[in-house]
Amino acid sequence: MKKIILLLLLSISATAFAQKLERIEPMYWWVGMKNPKLQLLVHGDRIADLGVTLNYPGVKLVAINKVENPNYLFLDLEISESAAAGKFPIVFTKAGKKLLQHVYELKQKSTKAERIQGVNSSDLIYLLMPDRFSNGDPKNDVVKGMQETKLNRDSMYFRHGGDLQGLINKLDYLKDLGVTAIWMTPEIENDMANASYHGYAATDHYKIDPRYGNLELYKSFVDKVHEKGMKVVKDIVHNHVGTGHWFYKDMPMKDWVNQWPVYTQTSYRDEPVMDPHASKADQKKMLDGWFVPSMPDLNQRNPYVQNYLTQNHIWWVEDAGIDGLRLDTYPYNDPDYMRDWAIKIKAEFPTLSIFGETLVNSAAAQAFFTGGNTVSRGFDTELPGVTDAVLKNAIYEALNGKSGWTDGIFRLYTTVAQDFLYQDASRNVIFLDNHDMSRFYSMVKEDFDKYKSGMALLLTLRGIPQMYYGTEILMKNYSDPDGLVRSDFPGGWPADKTDKFSAAGRSAQENEAWNFVRTLANYRKNSPALQHGKMMQYVPENGMYTYFRYLPEGGKTVMVIVNTDDQAKTLETSRFEERIGQASSATNVITKEKINALKTIAVPAKTTLVLELI
Amino acid sequence: MKKIILLLLLSISATAFAQKLERIEPMYWWVGMKNPKLQLLVHGDRIADLGVTLNYPGVKLVAINKVENPNYLFLDLEISESAAAGKFPIVFTKAGKKLLQHVYELKQKSTKAERIQGVNSSDLIYLLMPDRFSNGDPKNDVVKGMQETKLNRDSMYFRHGGDLQGLINKLDYLKDLGVTAIWMTPEIENDMANASYHGYAATDHYKIDPRYGNLELYKSFVDKVHEKGMKVVKDIVHNHVGTGHWFYKDMPMKDWVNQWPVYTQTSYRDEPVMDPHASKADQKKMLDGWFVPSMPDLNQRNPYVQNYLTQNHIWWVEDAGIDGLRLDTYPYNDPDYMRDWAIKIKAEFPTLSIFGETLVNSAAAQAFFTGGNTVSRGFDTELPGVTDAVLKNAIYEALNGKSGWTDGIFRLYTTVAQDFLYQDASRNVIFLDNHDMSRFYSMVKEDFDKYKSGMALLLTLRGIPQMYYGTEILMKNYSDPDGLVRSDFPGGWPADKTDKFSAAGRSAQENEAWNFVRTLANYRKNSPALQHGKMMQYVPENGMYTYFRYLPEGGKTVMVIVNTDDQAKTLETSRFEERIGQASSATNVITKEKINALKTIAVPAKTTLVLELI
Repeated sequence: MKKIILLLLLSISATAFAQKLERIEPMYWWVGMKNPKLQLLVHGDRIADLGVTLNYPGVKLVAINKVENPNYLFLDLEISESAAAGKFPIVFTKAGKKLLQHVYELKQKSTKAERIQGVNSSDLIYLLMPDRFSNGDPKNDVVKGMQETKLNRDSMYFRHGGDLQGLINKLDYLKDLGVTAIWMTPEIENDMANASYHGYAATDHYKIDPRYGNLELYKSFVDKVHEKGMKVVKDIVHNHVGTGHWFYKDMPMKDWVNQWPVYTQTSYRDEPVMDPHASKADQKKMLDGWFVPSMPDLNQRNPYVQNYLTQNHIWWVEDAGIDGLRLDTYPYNDPDYMRDWAIKIKAEFPTLSIFGETLVNSAAAQAFFTGGNTVSRGFDTELPGVTDAVLKNAIYEALNGKSGWTDGIFRLYTTVAQDFLYQDASRNVIFLDNHDMSRFYSMVKEDFDKYKSGMALLLTLRGIPQMYYGTEILMKNYSDPDGLVRSDFPGGWPADKTDKFSAAGRSAQENEAWNFVRTLANYRKNSPALQHGKMMQYVPENGMYTYFRYLPEGGKTVMVIVNTDDQAKTLETSRFEERIGQASSATNVITKEKINALKTIAVPAKTTLVLELI
Repeated sequence: MKKIILLLLLSISATAFAQKLERIEPMYWWVGMKNPKLQLLVHGDRIADLGVTLNYPGVKLVAINKVENPNYLFLDLEISESAAAGKFPIVFTKAGKKLLQHVYELKQKSTKAERIQGVNSSDLIYLLMPDRFSNGDPKNDVVKGMQETKLNRDSMYFRHGGDLQGLINKLDYLKDLGVTAIWMTPEIENDMANASYHGYAATDHYKIDPRYGNLELYKSFVDKVHEKGMKVVKDIVHNHVGTGHWFYKDMPMKDWVNQWPVYTQTSYRDEPVMDPHASKADQKKMLDGWFVPSMPDLNQRNPYVQNYLTQNHIWWVEDAGIDGLRLDTYPYNDPDYMRDWAIKIKAEFPTLSIFGETLVNSAAAQAFFTGGNTVSRGFDTELPGVTDAVLKNAIYEALNGKSGWTDGIFRLYTTVAQDFLYQDASRNVIFLDNHDMSRFYSMVKEDFDKYKSGMALLLTLRGIPQMYYGTEILMKNYSDPDGLVRSDFPGGWPADKTDKFSAAGRSAQENEAWNFVRTLANYRKNSPALQHGKMMQYVPENGMYTYFRYLPEGGKTVMVIVNTDDQAKTLETSRFEERIGQASSATNVITKEKINALKTIAVPAKTTLVLELI
């Protein structure tokens, strides 16, 4: 009887208090992780006034950390190897009495071999913005209670309604095109009043934005991608959140974010991060300055912030089975933290791919950010790959520039020649454009020959090729303002007049572009030389740049000849003997035409020939 | 009696044969070297038909090497630590009988501490072409028997008559200007029919060109330079010689030089040397291709060539007491040989300075060639310094370009920020021009403000500053054709109408330039911060680039403010607090004006202010 009364009292208390225990994050965790430590963030009105106990075999509550804001507790748990998956109550007490409990779950970490596949140079990544690709569920276009209250497809900064279901609907399209990995801009909640479609102003790290779907749908998306033999890259942001983030509105402590006496913007200059002559002032401005006023800059020297972010990323990979992570604004993050982060992530997921966004100005600066590189003098970032903006610029110079000692096609040659800076340049993600820059087709002034030449480079150079959605149907526009390069994919909305997801909806030239990409992307899928072969390049001569992708152990060699001039040319091949070897003929990978003699090869104007040697 | 007759016979044989024993090189050597090995090249008509013996305590004739050409023998000697300085005969025998002897000398290696001073960032190097600087001895203007038979000061490609005595006469001038090290283009014999003044087509590695003087005069020049507290840099060429070289006219073996089925020029492209994707064909063309048809490319994989060159360079340093070596056309040499060379040279002369000419296109490529760098992946060139052409280009962009994200003054900032690529960028030789490129004053379109700004950069940035002769008197011209930038220094010839070595012969503006250089160069001599201090640079703001040279241990800090705009500006200094610290005033190093407050600093248009903080 006494016992019953007590339980009743507790139940009342718990209910009374439950309104205030707003969240515990990570929402659940796993046994079987390499790192036995787990730090739970507990958020609730004056939660710090309470004591905490828990009792579960193999789980130890090592510390209860109170911070400046009494609405937070950070619980340090240690999960021993002997702990089994299961649920247990975390009990909150006042004056020794149990006031409330939260049932926490430890799941079993997946033991499925090669569940996390990794994204590598054998892949073709397709980057899209989920709001702009396809609207599969009009019911979630506007979600009640969220800050942005309407849809407006006519405005480039409003939401357009694209979502996860839309993307799921188009997986066969992508597979057919030859895509093997999908990277969408962030799909977690961005409950911001303006331009929330953008995705880089998170307001909840554990929630899929309801305009896209929910966690179950996201996990189902990942599963479906995997079923179709493709992979998923998740776009994560360490550097900042949106001002609408719940934890920014009630910060655990003042230095949860980088504080300045007056608003201070980052210099956007990566140089102070690597410059041996840099001042602390310039380093601080770069690393701690805010990206824009609406995106508070997280203080990554704060160990609570560190744990929060790292655990969140581990949570997503383990929970959904993600294959690769793309790290936004990599150089703006605290280098020591990012190194520690990478070590911890790789310890849990050795096969996971990781690449950082590095829009820098030289191969040396780019290489500085890569792990195991040769340049960063004893500081190993542990970052496997970067986005190769320097190669992108070189490809544009090759396509659009005039040949000179280091200009035109020589820029591309000399850039690739700097691969000695990297431990492995094939881990660089190579690209022609993305959501933050003018579209490729516009950058070559809608010159269709240059378009094909550039796409052939993208799909045959070393690295992990990434294409931006719509490039295959000649979508265009300049990035000033940037919304222009984020147009909807025609046919992604039920009411769209044309459907460019289908051949019938595309113009003849769009189909030619589409088939060009499809042919080369699908050839690439079956070409070990292109997927992971070595590269040999030759000093350009007579305006032509020639390189080979090959397997030292034998197998089919791919010869690529780039003529960026507007004159057709004839290539003498005797200097390529090292790679042509005994081959006496070749097949044009795009046209399937046979070339019956290799002594000289005719190369049309503004063309990148892709030949399989026989 | 019998003995006398024998000697008489030998004497006759020796005389008969002496005509054919043309040379033994090195001409003499030293005991006390780190490397006990010495390989003597013996050249004489059918010398390989003879046997060789020698008998000297501590010296062992290890091998007598015959090669393709019977006019050569290569004698491998081993000189033990116990060997004393002295002379001994090398005896040549036929059928066991002594036919000839050559008395060889082993001198004592200098044991004078710090004899080889090294040239470092505390120095200011003055580069000159000896034919074009000053004619101190008209008697040697034309030397009978040499290929070039006349002097013609009106033609830029003929000899003009400058010589070592002329240079010796001007040492006080250079010392007064603030120069601390003299580098002249090669002074060894170039007995070529055309453009022999150039100096890079050697015809005898052991002989000072008679148009400049002789070995004794050269050694006397070095001694006089040292007496005046200055240093000597010798310009040496590993890569090639002139077609008039005695050993090219009668080669020891076919592969003494790099042979090609048809004449093949180098590609002049350094990329294949470092590119992990390079073909062997491109590497061979770069390294083994000839620089020009008149300069045979030495085969540095040939061990006889290796020994010949390395010993020759050691010979010059030890014999004359040289402080530094400048290595011509560094990237065109065999990397393995150059590494071995550097190790051997540094073993003998640990204090010697060495820098290689690397006219390449990126800091990464430049760094690749420096020893202990971070980029060349396990291959350490062992080369301490390079000529910093990338910094030169950046200075021009800063002075002449328009400010942009990586343009204008930002090019200079971002270039210096890449110093993480080097083990020690202060070993780079920095410069604005040299004998192979347009003169600085022309490159800034004779803008006197830019001239001063550039000279201030040269004398305050990290590295070993090098100026080209005549820059101090505003000599100008473009390098197309290159002879134009190799004009005579006015006043260097007795008949010259004006003498710009003296203030009276210079115009007012020339004197202003001269005094600007002199003031800063002499200030630099007494500024540990500029000579070997650290550098701290700040991201340019408001079109101004600010850096500091300072000593972490304290001492006077130099603040440099670069305004390349044609608008005067005001610099807010609060962001420089890390370096300005407690300083409250400053002295303008050039004008000696006092600046009494540092909160803001007025910076005139197109000006580099050099301030000593107080």
